[in-house]
Amino acid sequence: MSKSPLKIAIAGLGTVGGGTVQLLHDQAELLAARAGRTLALVGAAALVRPPELPLDGVPFFTDARELAKTCDYDVLVELIGGAGGIALEVVKTALERGRSVVTANKAMIAHHGVELALIAERTGANIGFEASVGGGIPIIKSLREGLAGNRLSKVMGILNGTCNYILTTMRDSGRDFADVLAEAQALGYAEADPTFDIDGIDTAHKLAILASLAFTMPVDLDAVSCEGIRHVSALDIRYADELGYRIKLLGVASRTEAGVETRVYPAMVPLSFPLAHVGGPFNAIVTEGDFVGRTVLEGRGAGARPTASAVVADLMDLATGRVGPTFGVPVADLTPLPAAATGSHRSAYYIRLMVKDEPGVFADIAAALRDEKVSMEQIIQRGRAPEETVPVVMTVHETEEAAMLRAVARINALASIAEPAHLIRIENL
Amino acid sequence: MSKSPLKIAIAGLGTVGGGTVQLLHDQAELLAARAGRTLALVGAAALVRPPELPLDGVPFFTDARELAKTCDYDVLVELIGGAGGIALEVVKTALERGRSVVTANKAMIAHHGVELALIAERTGANIGFEASVGGGIPIIKSLREGLAGNRLSKVMGILNGTCNYILTTMRDSGRDFADVLAEAQALGYAEADPTFDIDGIDTAHKLAILASLAFTMPVDLDAVSCEGIRHVSALDIRYADELGYRIKLLGVASRTEAGVETRVYPAMVPLSFPLAHVGGPFNAIVTEGDFVGRTVLEGRGAGARPTASAVVADLMDLATGRVGPTFGVPVADLTPLPAAATGSHRSAYYIRLMVKDEPGVFADIAAALRDEKVSMEQIIQRGRAPEETVPVVMTVHETEEAAMLRAVARINALASIAEPAHLIRIENL
Repeated sequence: MSKSPLKIAIAGLGTVGGGTVQLLHDQAELLAARAGRTLALVGAAALVRPPELPLDGVPFFTDARELAKTCDYDVLVELIGGAGGIALEVVKTALERGRSVVTANKAMIAHHGVELALIAERTGANIGFEASVGGGIPIIKSLREGLAGNRLSKVMGILNGTCNYILTTMRDSGRDFADVLAEAQALGYAEADPTFDIDGIDTAHKLAILASLAFTMPVDLDAVSCEGIRHVSALDIRYADELGYRIKLLGVASRTEAGVETRVYPAMVPLSFPLAHVGGPFNAIVTEGDFVGRTVLEGRGAGARPTASAVVADLMDLATGRVGPTFGVPVADLTPLPAAATGSHRSAYYIRLMVKDEPGVFADIAAALRDEKVSMEQIIQRGRAPEETVPVVMTVHETEEAAMLRAVARINALASIAEPAHLIRIENL
Repeated sequence: MSKSPLKIAIAGLGTVGGGTVQLLHDQAELLAARAGRTLALVGAAALVRPPELPLDGVPFFTDARELAKTCDYDVLVELIGGAGGIALEVVKTALERGRSVVTANKAMIAHHGVELALIAERTGANIGFEASVGGGIPIIKSLREGLAGNRLSKVMGILNGTCNYILTTMRDSGRDFADVLAEAQALGYAEADPTFDIDGIDTAHKLAILASLAFTMPVDLDAVSCEGIRHVSALDIRYADELGYRIKLLGVASRTEAGVETRVYPAMVPLSFPLAHVGGPFNAIVTEGDFVGRTVLEGRGAGARPTASAVVADLMDLATGRVGPTFGVPVADLTPLPAAATGSHRSAYYIRLMVKDEPGVFADIAAALRDEKVSMEQIIQRGRAPEETVPVVMTVHETEEAAMLRAVARINALASIAEPAHLIRIENL
């Protein structure tokens, strides 16, 4: 053990920061054996010093900026969170000092990743962000290194544990979205302000990062279209079950000759789909490469200990010199790719209509679909309830999104339609 | 692109060698961009030069030993196969010359990995063997790097595509083992001599490698107990289906306070099990770490292109200097761990008996189980066929293996038992 210790400063001692301090403490001997040098905590910053953490003898700062500026570290671990603000400030300070950064901050990498990579290239620092996507799943390393021999055409996944927990619980319990969300908040599985999770923004951040690595292009958060799970009802989940599907919030990035598409949306996936059985707090990512074919990586997508595992994986890479450009190639070699035309996306769909049970209504719906060349696969309508509103559920074969939306606009305009159509994509591989 | 090319020599131009040459040719530009230097093929060896491969201008050798000894390469890619013989000889030659080695040869790493790692340490060479386990799945990198912050308690997987194809096809078609094996051989999915695959030896090689990385211990192939799939019948597969299980050939390495167990056996897994839906030629590996929890990695376990993807991942690591000790730590730091006592393994079981349908036979079977404190869960017996031989299927709750085997020995000795009991473990997590 002749090498000098890797000097680590941690900014932020919340859930992930606490887990990281604990891991570095509990596994110190193991890490030293595997890295060939010790991983030494030389500074920590938080508003309040958490008494339960093993921080004896570690210089403590109540201002992370002070830590970043003055402490003598090799790597700053940024676990404060938020796209900008103090998190961004301390990361820039570290990189400008030529010190490396490890972060779990997907918002910051999605918004400022390229800018930060440029600073790192100029000062000779490195940036690790394994913990920013997929919790403990080594997906960043797999994309950047393990699959480096491939041209990837697709990367898609269940990237938000909160949404997956809510959707799984809705299915298991038959309860509705608002009810399950309230419970998840009470249990601490969802934030008081759940917007980032349930509106798909967190998934969009992660997808933008994955797409950059997969397609060797600059992170482009603005290009990600984003639809959350607020509108998924218990009724849709029951129909999905009946039709042999699960509903999952997916982030899907694909690259075809038409260009790149990056989209977040809830989708029905068949039970044979590799993501169908990924439940509760788990995340999973599917990739398609031209040589490797399909791979699937699954694991815990959040939480103190799994995320700390990813943070420490980055620290171990820094400790052993396994480093390289932030996004796999120098920023100058990241090539912007054209976005596929809006509406050109092809997919099968599930449509739930709330219909006044009157003679002739089916004929109008069928005509709207026929005129747009949308081909029906299945229809489910239970019983009769003359003059009342009843659900009518259809699935349609793969069709162009624009045609589907035109048909739906016509259907929504029908007098017998009680509320706008509920449309959910059906995803197949 | 100021760095010099990585000079690559390939020994063996069969399926994987051909795929690797093709990948290096097709993706040359992509690889150069990602590595910051070109990957240059400077020599290739095979008994016959395959005319379809893009080998123009590449010096060709009919003797791989000549290539290994005389060619000026940075890394020798060994794709000849076989635990010893020429494969081992050329690898040793390269390492003794201080040149690195990349190999897909699980038999060689399982038998000689430690010996080779010692040579590499002495001469400053590196050894990459991502392609030796799980085809294109980046499992070696994940264990050695991505999960480096964890103490692992378990690594288990479906590691042999041939067996998984046979078992999946048996289930889908209802046909028997010998029939499906013959077809797999005709289609080229199974070797003319299928012993290595179907008797679990190939899985044992891979499991020994995974256990070494997971538990930081020397590769110990002799410690792996090995049971193949020859005795799995179409009848057992039908009963498994009825009971809600799939039959999979598993390699399971676990570490408890009792010691390390490494075992290969066909097991029934419930449909909720992460490996239950891994079908056909796919492989998958489950790991359990103390911080990360459970992760699952799935992908194509064999074939020219997926395996080439893994070979090239290792080459990219060498090209970019992401290197380290062969088994994650220097050989001197690999610690042999005690084997768990034989028979102490606990598991639930499926038992199929072929029984002469006579009065009193159930009582004798039940008594044998009771006396060994084996607790029955379910019994299936269909109809009656007095004086004929009928299958009786039972599942029993988790029990110690030694007790189970004693009970089975007593049952096999009963006069009404027509053939030895068919015993298959039921695996849960």
